[in-house]
Amino acid sequence: MRTSGTHASTERTEPYDALVIGGGIIGLVTAWRAAQRGLRTALADPAPGGGAAMVAAGMLGSVGEFQYGEHALLDLNLASAARYPEFVAEVEEAGGQEVGYRDCGTLMVALDADDRAHLRDLHERHRRFGLEVEWLTGRECRRLEPMLAPGVRGGMRIDGDHQVDPRRLTAALLRACERAGVVIHRALAERLTVTGDRATGAELADGTRVSAGQTVLAAGSLSARLAGVPPDVLPPVRPVKGQVLRLTVPAPYRPFLSRVIRAVVRGTDVYLVPRVDGELVIGATSEERGWDTTVTASGVYELLRDAHELIPGITELPLVETCAGLRPGSPDNGPFLGPTALPGLQMATGHFRNGVLLTPITGDVMAEALTGGELPPAARAFTPHRLDGAARTSFNAPQEQPA
Amino acid sequence: MRTSGTHASTERTEPYDALVIGGGIIGLVTAWRAAQRGLRTALADPAPGGGAAMVAAGMLGSVGEFQYGEHALLDLNLASAARYPEFVAEVEEAGGQEVGYRDCGTLMVALDADDRAHLRDLHERHRRFGLEVEWLTGRECRRLEPMLAPGVRGGMRIDGDHQVDPRRLTAALLRACERAGVVIHRALAERLTVTGDRATGAELADGTRVSAGQTVLAAGSLSARLAGVPPDVLPPVRPVKGQVLRLTVPAPYRPFLSRVIRAVVRGTDVYLVPRVDGELVIGATSEERGWDTTVTASGVYELLRDAHELIPGITELPLVETCAGLRPGSPDNGPFLGPTALPGLQMATGHFRNGVLLTPITGDVMAEALTGGELPPAARAFTPHRLDGAARTSFNAPQEQPA
Repeated sequence: MRTSGTHASTERTEPYDALVIGGGIIGLVTAWRAAQRGLRTALADPAPGGGAAMVAAGMLGSVGEFQYGEHALLDLNLASAARYPEFVAEVEEAGGQEVGYRDCGTLMVALDADDRAHLRDLHERHRRFGLEVEWLTGRECRRLEPMLAPGVRGGMRIDGDHQVDPRRLTAALLRACERAGVVIHRALAERLTVTGDRATGAELADGTRVSAGQTVLAAGSLSARLAGVPPDVLPPVRPVKGQVLRLTVPAPYRPFLSRVIRAVVRGTDVYLVPRVDGELVIGATSEERGWDTTVTASGVYELLRDAHELIPGITELPLVETCAGLRPGSPDNGPFLGPTALPGLQMATGHFRNGVLLTPITGDVMAEALTGGELPPAARAFTPHRLDGAARTSFNAPQEQPA
Repeated sequence: MRTSGTHASTERTEPYDALVIGGGIIGLVTAWRAAQRGLRTALADPAPGGGAAMVAAGMLGSVGEFQYGEHALLDLNLASAARYPEFVAEVEEAGGQEVGYRDCGTLMVALDADDRAHLRDLHERHRRFGLEVEWLTGRECRRLEPMLAPGVRGGMRIDGDHQVDPRRLTAALLRACERAGVVIHRALAERLTVTGDRATGAELADGTRVSAGQTVLAAGSLSARLAGVPPDVLPPVRPVKGQVLRLTVPAPYRPFLSRVIRAVVRGTDVYLVPRVDGELVIGATSEERGWDTTVTASGVYELLRDAHELIPGITELPLVETCAGLRPGSPDNGPFLGPTALPGLQMATGHFRNGVLLTPITGDVMAEALTGGELPPAARAFTPHRLDGAARTSFNAPQEQPA
């Protein structure tokens, strides 16, 4: 049986300049920016405006996420973070709604002497890279955030980290796409069409064949599953499950927290993101479980336990929602951006834990790449063909954090 | 504005023999049994088939609940438990659906030496009362239930405890009421009508005035709030919040548990009720928080933590639902059954943690009382006017368990 999409019901479309496969936050920003550059743009997704961003906390932690050996990714994160204020203003204008952007900063705290030593070391590295961070004693941390546990031993204040509400941002981007004339096919792209040695569009589950000069694979964790893509071109992305809790801070207790709080508890990165409307998001587990998106007792239990160690008062708050999503993990934690080895096929996927943060720069980079310009310098380290055979073949194995 | 009920739209009804205020499990069984005896019966509730039973686990633990100083309640519990198999058969026939009754027994376990001593003592008391219970070593417990934590030190097997699915039982009772001719007014009873020195029905929120020879107050935790009831007749019930979790056991892991598992963990009674359809209910918190029914982070966290100590494997299970309800607590933990000091007003409320268990006997007792018969012997200790002034006035204070 064939069902027609809402915006498109022809069996074979006129050729577009660009077809974006995937209507999550990355696909939407790519399509929007392409349309703004004057490209006739289509997007295919059975449920546009969904994807991993529906679960994400929206912590824009360019600095906090910084790991050894990820300098190029740090540069990309910082470049995207710097674009955020202007990006948000533009999306809110184009999408006609606010997206919950908040310039609140982050406080990373240590709960014991080991944590403290580790965080001190991270603080030093940040300073060597010229990043603006401030070291605080435990008492100073609690003065900033009175709800912190008495046992907090010290912390690092990062005023450059911000937050956004990913659900609102995605909704605004979808509206911005529609207003910019992006044609949205509400159907799954089932197969890339290859004509000769060139990608020429895709076949959708509703029977539509969409032709396009450039096709962009932006299907998040599903990007490695598109039929028709040559095996050596398929991106080595895998689903990494994240479970997240949403609590509410009742009005009398607000603000409760004034900034994002992060810590490593029992080896796990835990963060609490307080929104202006009283929502408090606690994230996130990181689990290698294939395509499973069930909320488990252990996920909820461990998040509550670890968050409770940081902020004992959270236990009094209503628990409003538990959810799970799949991040598109990549072997080196970096995204795949721009042209692939197959002419006519580009990529914007593999953003792993940085999808929301990297949304502004991804939109700009992909618009450049689609209009035939060069990839901006910050993105050149993230071309899809950067990985050698060994790194590609290991992509189904659990991914270690760089030491 | 006045809205009409589904089954009743007149402003003033012909007098009924009995009007039941409250369409939870207790109100429904009362109305059903009254109609079966030939009484013209009405029931008023804005959402019949709701109430505390929607949250309850449905553990029929007459013996496990046994406390010092509650011999009359134990007798009532045992009498009601004994009626359950026949009651279930009758409700399933009358309501046209199964209610998830399961003759699975309970295993109460001890996690440390103190628990073990306490449980040993409880075992002795049970034996002195002639109840069938068997003492098991930790190894014997794990042989029965392999998912139990290795640390379990011993346990008491109670084959007389059963379970039922309270949501299904309530739905079947509602259907049975409709089939038996009970007229259901889908509106809140706002005020008891008193004519002279006699209760004569109630005024509903939709403007209907329902006249009845006998009015039964069966509004659960809300029973103390009905306007028009003389203060010295109002039942001393208060809301006691319970939070409950619902997990699912995926088919490959079943049965997972074969019977109800109970324990006291850190002073809190925790139980896991495994249903045939794979649902696993974990209950329950007991909180004195007025009319608050929010699911809190602490409720979910503590239930998961305590259940995990008993059954470590639960953390791998999907968490499907979190919910909270209000039990009608009474000063001595016993229900209020039968005629009050106000002629024409009867009561079936205050069932606290035993509402589902006491449903069969409550229906029988109330049918007797409404048709002018004597209260059965087991119910005579639970007349509404049993409490003296001191006990009544203390009803708003937090209720301690009998030592």
